[in-house]
Order: sequence, then structure tokens, then C-alpha cells
Amino acid sequence: MLPLELMEDHLQLLDQRRLPAEVKYLQIFDHKALVEAVRELAVRGAPALGAAGAFGVWLASREALSLPEDRQRDFLAEALRRIASARPTAVNLSRGVERVAARLRYPLNNEVLEGLRQEGEALVAEDQRAARRMISLGTELIRDGGVYLTHCNTGGLATTGLGTALGVFFEAKRQNKKFRVFVDETRPLLQGSRLTMTELLAEDIPAVLITDSMAAAVMKEKGVDGVFVGADRIAANGDAANKVGTLQLAVTARFFRVPFYVVAPESTLDPALASGKEIKIEERSAREIKYLDGIQLAPETAEVFNPAFDVTPGSLITAVITEHGIFREPYNFGADR
Amino acid sequence: MLPLELMEDHLQLLDQRRLPAEVKYLQIFDHKALVEAVRELAVRGAPALGAAGAFGVWLASREALSLPEDRQRDFLAEALRRIASARPTAVNLSRGVERVAARLRYPLNNEVLEGLRQEGEALVAEDQRAARRMISLGTELIRDGGVYLTHCNTGGLATTGLGTALGVFFEAKRQNKKFRVFVDETRPLLQGSRLTMTELLAEDIPAVLITDSMAAAVMKEKGVDGVFVGADRIAANGDAANKVGTLQLAVTARFFRVPFYVVAPESTLDPALASGKEIKIEERSAREIKYLDGIQLAPETAEVFNPAFDVTPGSLITAVITEHGIFREPYNFGADR
Repeated sequence: MLPLELMEDHLQLLDQRRLPAEVKYLQIFDHKALVEAVRELAVRGAPALGAAGAFGVWLASREALSLPEDRQRDFLAEALRRIASARPTAVNLSRGVERVAARLRYPLNNEVLEGLRQEGEALVAEDQRAARRMISLGTELIRDGGVYLTHCNTGGLATTGLGTALGVFFEAKRQNKKFRVFVDETRPLLQGSRLTMTELLAEDIPAVLITDSMAAAVMKEKGVDGVFVGADRIAANGDAANKVGTLQLAVTARFFRVPFYVVAPESTLDPALASGKEIKIEERSAREIKYLDGIQLAPETAEVFNPAFDVTPGSLITAVITEHGIFREPYNFGADR
Repeated sequence: MLPLELMEDHLQLLDQRRLPAEVKYLQIFDHKALVEAVRELAVRGAPALGAAGAFGVWLASREALSLPEDRQRDFLAEALRRIASARPTAVNLSRGVERVAARLRYPLNNEVLEGLRQEGEALVAEDQRAARRMISLGTELIRDGGVYLTHCNTGGLATTGLGTALGVFFEAKRQNKKFRVFVDETRPLLQGSRLTMTELLAEDIPAVLITDSMAAAVMKEKGVDGVFVGADRIAANGDAANKVGTLQLAVTARFFRVPFYVVAPESTLDPALASGKEIKIEERSAREIKYLDGIQLAPETAEVFNPAFDVTPGSLITAVITEHGIFREPYNFGADR
């Protein structure tokens, strides 16, 4: 199951909101439908959002093709702004847009469009090459007989197919390592129970589902060897924004002396930010916590705080694993290249 | 709304599984129905379970009244064993049974039954007196303008009407203190969103619902002044079993230097246990995590770990507040009486 695929005349997205109960694909023909799908998390995960941003430029340009040249520029400026800002925290989305937008030429024509498509496809190919290297490095950290823990979804569904943190488990399994993974269900949207459990079971990896609040009990009772998570944006000092709950998990891992690893491609690094304080955290609708599939879970008038992400200080991260190496404090990302 | 009330010829329980959507009462006429209600969490919360255990002795004795004397003893021995062990972690349940069972006389008659009823009512009255003292002590720890955080439900619904940790907030509000409470939704059964939010809104206390994984982000961003929780069993060294997630919250509070308070009546102390290692932790059905009101949240074949409680070391607890005082490390409970 690929989260997104560029077809002849449109973008196909796997609707991740309906998994695992229903495997349904969205056929996306214009940038507004893409923005909606991104906002509603039909497609999610930092690397997958990078690809969505990249292909979004092609999609919007196709729409603009029939407009007069002077309107093409305005249309695209607005469309690309909307795509890039559909979700603010993952840096990959706006980066994907920027990278492909650099290939825009006016007036638009089929050749320009083909160039945009190729640039998007190049981003995906590079992303997959990076994933292979990153996963190979990460897999060395998995020990035979080990017990691991993960949060949210960082598998094929969150990326261009290979995964980040979950990709490490897939590869370790391919190398015939024996290990077990505890999976945080990841409230409110349950990417852990819905997506990660589905992906781990598909690869025949022993996986145990827990609520997010049980990670401490698991570390205390089950002897966890490491926590592996992804990231949505990493600052120069190693501070990492990731799915809300990651900070709590990192604090808990530190208390129980469990190594805490972040697996993310170079494209998730944002060295322009000195620290995580500068990362904008998206707040989402109260409905995500108060309702589940239409079922009311809390009083209608209840006030809710629903940040989609939190920022884990670099000092709580044992290592950040990118395609360029295993980085530890102080995080001189890129210093050894 | 009282969680339980002893009527003329039966026990009435508020069905807490259906709140806040539906206010429905269960009419309990025999001990088997009571055991079922306790197991299914129609009634829950350590002090409320103490009262349920106490009234359960009266209920079972009423059933046994028509039996020949020699069968009365066997019937009650089995019935009381079932009630006392319906849930293993909260000590109050078996204590409530034992206390009232000490008043059993054979052959059973109406006078004996009346004595059992009175003993159960005495337990409730003492519990409420203890609650008032405990709450009064706890309220001194609430500062005007403060921000607090709580987990699970420790209000009127969990007790014989006054609450433990939540009772502190109710009393502080009555004293016109201004403060705000963040409420963990408390997966898997959502006692926080369903019950605690309902009780806080009813008292007009500003409350903000979060998922359990957001507590760290709240402590980091919102300046929390204290965490208040209840307990189901407290060992001699201060180790406290409470709703799963409490340990993670205590670890997080320690990291962010937030005071962590446990509010529980003396009847929750179990000084026979040297440490929390001896506390039996109930594991519950996988369905509680994999389904919500019949909606499937995870793959059908997913393995699940679902402990109902975890044990927080006394060293992570700033103070335990009972009706007899505010106890800190080393916890010499009862030493000053």
C-alpha cells in the first residue's frame, strides 16, 4: 500500500483515515482537494507530505494551464501558498513545494508540466534512497531478542514507501532478527492502532498495542531496549517536533534509562532554526478528542487543548539517525560531510 | 449524582459506563449482578468500591435468608469471596466486605440484616467524614491563579459522594479560589473525558480536556502548579497503585519539577505491603483498547497489553494526603497518631 501515487492525469491518495477497516483511495484532480486531504490527514507523515507538496505543484500547474499567462502566475502563487501551509509543522511539505516550484516556467505548457512531474518523481526517488541508508544505519541498533517501543506511524504509509523508524523494524525483520515492538495507540487519531499495528502485522513482526499512557508501565515491567520514533521538523540543536506524546515518551525513556532514537531524513532537518522554540505547533480541532467516528466521548461544552505535535529537546534524544549518519549531542548535523 | 445508594430491598448503582451521554441506573438485587457491575466498571473508584463491597454483604445475606442455616454459611462464604475478588487492585473493595462480614450472625434473620445495613451505612458515613478532612488538607495546596492537572476520575462518582483528588478542586472552588484544571482523557475507558469533565463542568470549574500523551506538553507550555490524583492501594513505603498512566504522569511531573499529590483515604493504605511490588495489577480485556462502543480501532488480530493500573514509586510522590495528614518521604503513615 503506497500512500500516494502520481497517475496520468491526477494524484491518487490512500485515505489513511479509514484504515484498517476500509482501504479506499482518493482521486485528487486539483490543489484544493489536495489541501483538504492534507488538512484532514487522509495523507500524513513528514516524508509523504514532502511528496504530496511536490506533486501538488504539478497538480496546480495542470489547473493553471488553460489560464492566460498573467493569471497563471497569480493562480499558482496562491495555490502553492495554500498547499505549503496546509499543515505548518512538518517542514517537508513546504520544502517539497519549493523544490518543484523552482522548475516552474511561464507560460506553462506540457513540457514544463513534464519537468514538474519529473522533479516530483526525482524527490521521491531520492527520498527512497535516503530511506534505505537511514534504515540500514538504524537497523544496527536493533539487537536480537530486543524489546522496542514506537509512537504514531512512521512506516510505508507515512513516507514514500520504506518508512523511517518503522522501516528500521522492517529491515531488522528481513535480517532475521527476533524482537518485539510495543505500539502506542497514539491518541487522538490512533495512527498507532490503525496504521502501525496494520503495517507490523503485515510484516509478521510481533507487536503489542498499548494506550499512550502505558509506556512507563511497559518500560518498568518489560525491559525496553529502545524507543524509535520519526520527526516532523528538527532544529539545529537536535530539538525535534514530532507527534504529540513524543516528549512525554522521551521524558519517560530518560527516567527508565531507555535509549531514545529519532529516525528522519535530512529533509526533515531545519538548521535555520536554532532551537525547537521556533517550531510552529499546529493546534487541531477539539472534535478530534471529543468525538470518535461520531460517538461523543466528552461533554459537548468541554474545552479542549489539542496540539498535533510537541517538541522533544535534543538533550533527551540519544541519537538522530539520518541518511548521513547517527548524530548525538552536540548535534553537528552535516559537519561530517 | 451518587454512584450508589442502598434502597429498601436492593442496591441502586449509577451506570458510569454510559455517562455523560446517558444517565441510567442499575437496580441490583443479588450479589452476582453486583459482581458483574463491578467487573464491568458500572461502579468504579476505590472508595465507591469500598461501599459496594460493604453493601454487597447485605445483598448476599438477603439472598441467603431463605436457605437452611448450614447452607447460609457456604452460600455467603462463596458470595463474599466473589464480591471481594471481583477486582483485585483496589484494597477498599475487600476491606468493605470484611468490615461488614464481621457483623454476620447465624442463623440470618431480619435483625442481623439490619445490623449489616447499619454497618455499611456507618462505613459510608465515616468515609464521608474522612473525605471532608482529607479534602480540607488538600485544598491548602491549591493556590489562587494556579494551573493543575488530573488523571482518571476521583470525584463524587468514584467515592461516596465527595471525591478525593477532585474533591480538593470542588472545595477550592467553594472557597472562591480561581484556578484551571487540565484533565487527562484516561484511555482506554475515558473516565477523564466522560466523568471528570462532567463533574468539573457541573461545578463551574474551568477545565481543559487533553489526551493522556499531552501532559508533558502542557507542563512544558502552561506552567502546571501541581498534579492531583487518587489511589487504589498504597504500600507502606508510599508506592501507590492507581489508574494506568499515573506512573508516566509522575515521571513527567518529576522531570518538569511539578509537585505530584496523591489524595486517598486511610482505607486505601495497605501497610501490610512493604512496597508496591506486592500489589496485584489487574489486566483487562484487549477489547477495551481495540474497540470503542463497537467501533474497531485496530486490526482484529492485534495483540494487546492492558493493565488497568500501574504503581508509582513513593519517591516520585511529593505527598500523600489522607484524613490524617500530609505525608511525605519517608512515609510513616500513622506514625503521628
